[in-house]
Amino acid sequence: MSDTRTNSGVDNISVFRKSFTWSVPGERVITIMTAGNLATTQAVISQLEERNKAPSERRPSILEEPTMFQVATHVGNLLRGVIEGRQSGPVQGEGARFTATMIVAGQIRDMEPRLFMIYPEGNFIEASFDTPFFQIGETKYGRPILLRGYDKGMDFEQAVKLLMVSFDSTVAANLSVGLPFDLTVIARDQFEPLHQRRIRADDPYFNAISSSWSEALRNAFHQLPDYRFD
Amino acid sequence: MSDTRTNSGVDNISVFRKSFTWSVPGERVITIMTAGNLATTQAVISQLEERNKAPSERRPSILEEPTMFQVATHVGNLLRGVIEGRQSGPVQGEGARFTATMIVAGQIRDMEPRLFMIYPEGNFIEASFDTPFFQIGETKYGRPILLRGYDKGMDFEQAVKLLMVSFDSTVAANLSVGLPFDLTVIARDQFEPLHQRRIRADDPYFNAISSSWSEALRNAFHQLPDYRFD
Repeated sequence: MSDTRTNSGVDNISVFRKSFTWSVPGERVITIMTAGNLATTQAVISQLEERNKAPSERRPSILEEPTMFQVATHVGNLLRGVIEGRQSGPVQGEGARFTATMIVAGQIRDMEPRLFMIYPEGNFIEASFDTPFFQIGETKYGRPILLRGYDKGMDFEQAVKLLMVSFDSTVAANLSVGLPFDLTVIARDQFEPLHQRRIRADDPYFNAISSSWSEALRNAFHQLPDYRFD
Repeated sequence: MSDTRTNSGVDNISVFRKSFTWSVPGERVITIMTAGNLATTQAVISQLEERNKAPSERRPSILEEPTMFQVATHVGNLLRGVIEGRQSGPVQGEGARFTATMIVAGQIRDMEPRLFMIYPEGNFIEASFDTPFFQIGETKYGRPILLRGYDKGMDFEQAVKLLMVSFDSTVAANLSVGLPFDLTVIARDQFEPLHQRRIRADDPYFNAISSSWSEALRNAFHQLPDYRFD
C-alpha cells in the first residue's frame, strides 16, 4: 500500500502514483513501490518501461529477467545510476536531495514469492521469516501499530485492515502523507494481482476505520490500569 | 517525562539524566528536559548551575530571572552559545552533530505556569491552548497515541498513563530510547514538584502498561470493521 502525495513544501502538493505493477498472466507479477525524490523514482520507472523507445519496440526487461533476484538487481542498478547521474551533473552537492528507496515484490512461475527493499546505493535486502514486511518513506508514525498488530497468521483482508490503521496514524500526524492510497495484493501462484484498488478521500471503509480507531484507542487506553501518585 | 539513554552507536550506550528540576519552595519551580548531543546539553546544564564557580559562590541565574520568559531566553542564549562555540572550534563542519533541543517548564509566584520549546538557534515557542504539549528527540513513534489519546480534561494521573503508553511505543521501535525514565509533575501554584519518580526497567506499573497495551491494541484492532475484497 502506498500514498500518492508528493510535495516540495506544503504550498506545492501534488498527487502522483508511487506503486506500479506489471504482470504476465500465468507467468509473473511484479509490484514496485517508491519513496523519495519524485524525479528520481519517475526516471527509474520510465526506464523500466522503456519509454524512451517507440511503443512497439518496448520489451521491459523486468518482464524477461529469469528470477526476482535479478529483477531486484536490475532495479537497484537503475536507481543507483539515476541518483549518481544527478550527483555528477552541473548542479553539484545536491546528491542527498535526489535520494530514493524502493520496495520490489513479486513472483515468477516455479519460484517462491520474493520481497526486497532497495537502497539508494543500489544494494538490497530481502524479507524473511523474522522480518516479514518493509516500510519506506515516512515510516515511524505508522510503525508501532504494525509491530503490535501484525501476526503471521493474518489473512490478506486482515493485513489490509492493519495497513489502513497504520496509514491512518501517519496521515493524522504528517501533512506530507495523504490520500488517495494505492493498494495491491499479490497472492502466491496467481501471477496477477489478487486485488487492486485506489482508496480515495471519500472511501467509506477508510473513513470508518479512521473514526472508529480513535474511539477504539481511547477505550483501550481507559481499560489500562491507572497510574497513582501515592 | 524523559528517557535516559544516550548512544554514539548501538555499541556505546549509557544512562544519563535528561531532566533537571530546580525549585525555591513557595517561590518558583523550573524543569528543563533535553534532547540531542549530550556534550552540548551537559554544558548548558553545567552553566545554568554555575559549576565553574566554587559551591558557595553559585547563584544560578535561572533562580533569579524575574519571569519564565526570561528563563527561556537565558536557556536559549546558553544553548545557542554552546552550539556556536563548537561550530567555530578547531574541528570544522561538525556543527550539525552538536545540535540540541530543550523543553523548559515552570512557574514563578504571582504568574502563570509556562511551557517553552527551545530550538538550537536559541529562539523558542510557547505552548498554547491549541498546542498544549511538546515533544523533543525521537518524537514520531510515540506521537499518534498522544494525538488520539490526549484530552484537555485529563487529570495528572491520566496524563502520566498516556505518557507511559507513548514511551512504550517508542521504546518498542527504537533501541536508542530506553528505560529508566524520569517523570516530573508540576502543579499550578505549588512551586515545587507535585510528583517525581524514576521509572526503572523492573517498574511493575510500566511493565503492566506495556503488556496490557499490546493486548488492548489487538482487541481494539479486532473490533474495527473488517476489510472485504469483493
